[in-house]
Amino acid sequence: MNQLASAPRAVVLLSGGLDSATTLAVARSEGFRPYALTFRYGQRHAWEVQASRRVAESLGVAEHRVVQIDLRQFGCSALTGDLAVPKRSSVAEIGGEIPVTYVPGRNTIFLAYALCWAEVLGCQDIYLGVNALDYSGYPDCRPEYLAAFQRLAQLATRSGVEGQRLTIHAPLIDRTKAQIIQLGLQLGVDYGLTTSCYDPAADGAACGQCDACLLRRRGFAENQLTDPIRYAT
Amino acid sequence: MNQLASAPRAVVLLSGGLDSATTLAVARSEGFRPYALTFRYGQRHAWEVQASRRVAESLGVAEHRVVQIDLRQFGCSALTGDLAVPKRSSVAEIGGEIPVTYVPGRNTIFLAYALCWAEVLGCQDIYLGVNALDYSGYPDCRPEYLAAFQRLAQLATRSGVEGQRLTIHAPLIDRTKAQIIQLGLQLGVDYGLTTSCYDPAADGAACGQCDACLLRRRGFAENQLTDPIRYAT
Repeated sequence: MNQLASAPRAVVLLSGGLDSATTLAVARSEGFRPYALTFRYGQRHAWEVQASRRVAESLGVAEHRVVQIDLRQFGCSALTGDLAVPKRSSVAEIGGEIPVTYVPGRNTIFLAYALCWAEVLGCQDIYLGVNALDYSGYPDCRPEYLAAFQRLAQLATRSGVEGQRLTIHAPLIDRTKAQIIQLGLQLGVDYGLTTSCYDPAADGAACGQCDACLLRRRGFAENQLTDPIRYAT
Repeated sequence: MNQLASAPRAVVLLSGGLDSATTLAVARSEGFRPYALTFRYGQRHAWEVQASRRVAESLGVAEHRVVQIDLRQFGCSALTGDLAVPKRSSVAEIGGEIPVTYVPGRNTIFLAYALCWAEVLGCQDIYLGVNALDYSGYPDCRPEYLAAFQRLAQLATRSGVEGQRLTIHAPLIDRTKAQIIQLGLQLGVDYGLTTSCYDPAADGAACGQCDACLLRRRGFAENQLTDPIRYAT
C-alpha cells in the first residue's frame, strides 16, 4: 500500500461477489486508496462475507469494515427471508420482472452507510459494482437511481454544502458479465476468491441454478474460461 | 385505532423529541395509520428511545419498531462520540456553521431504513420532523435535501417503478419551534413525554444549555408556556 499512501481515499462497497471484487480492482487502478465496506445483513448467503475478507486481503485495501445490520426485521425477500430462491436451467428463463430476491431498500441503505463513512473519512468518491445489463431487474441498480443518489449525497453532506463534488462510481454499469470478467482478469482479480451464489451449500459450493450463478457461468463461458469456483451442480 | 384500520399506512420517524412527536400527531391528523420507526444509534442521549415509546403509546401507532444501528463505528460527532456537546447561555449564540453535533449521513440512513420498511408495508408515505428554521445548521435538514430523497425513493422502489408516487412529508419544515408547539398542543401532544436534550443527566433531566434545549425553551417561552419537562439548570 505504500505507493497509495498519498492517494485520495474512496469507499468501495464490497460484497465478496464477482462484480464488487472487480469494482475494488477498478478503484485501485483509477488511483484511489480503497476503504472497503461489507454488510452482514441477515443474508442467506453469509458465505459472501468471508469471500469479501479474502478479496480485500488479496487486492489490498486501506481498511475493511464489516457492518452488521438486520434487514430481516423488515422481511420478505428470498435473500433474507423464508421464500425459496428461484432456480432455473438457463439465463433465457430470467424474466424482466423484479424477482423475489430483490431486497427492498438494500442499495439505498448500503449507500447511506457508505456516504456516512465517506464523510467521516473526508473522501468524495464511492464505488459500487451495480450493473444495468445483468441486473436481474432490481430498481436500485439503474443509472437513474445512481444519479439520484449522487444528487442526494451532494446535498446531504458537509463537504457537499462546502462545494466539493461527491461522485458515485459504478464502473460496471454498462458492461456484460463477460466484459466484467475480462476487465477483472486484466486488473489481477482472483475470481476463485469470490462467490456469487444466492443459495450456496453449507460448504460454500455454488448452486449453479440461481440467477446469480447462471449469469456468472455464462460470463465465463463467453470468455471460453472455466469459472474457478466450485459448483454443486 | 379502530377508526384507522382502513386508513393508508405511513412510516413516521420518531426520535422521542418534540418535533417528531408533533410529526406523528400530524400524520394521524392527516388520516394516516402510523408505523413509528426509532433508532438506537449509539447516541449519547439514549434516553430519547424511552421517550419514543411513551410518545408512541400516548398518540397511538399501528406498530413501533426500534432498530439498533451503530453509527459510533463511523465516529466523530458530539452526539455519538467523545466530543463535548457545546453549551451556551442563549439562542443568539448558536452560529450558522455546521455544529459538532452533526452526525454524518444520519438522516440519509434513517430515511433509507424508512424507505425499506415503507416498501415492505406497501405504503407510499414517510413522515419526518426535520425543520429548516431551527435546524442547527445540519445539511440533511434542508428542503432541497428532502426533495432529492423523494426523487431517489421514487427510483429506488418497486412501487416507484410501477408508477406509484412516494412522498416524503416534512410538515414542520418551515415552522418555528413556537409554531410547532402550538400545532402539537392543538393535536393533543403531551410534551411532558418528550425529550430534546443532547446531553441529559443520568436521571433524564435536560441540561438546559445545549442547542436543542435552548431552542425548545425559547419555543415554550414564546407561547407564554412553561416546558413541562425537568431541567437540571
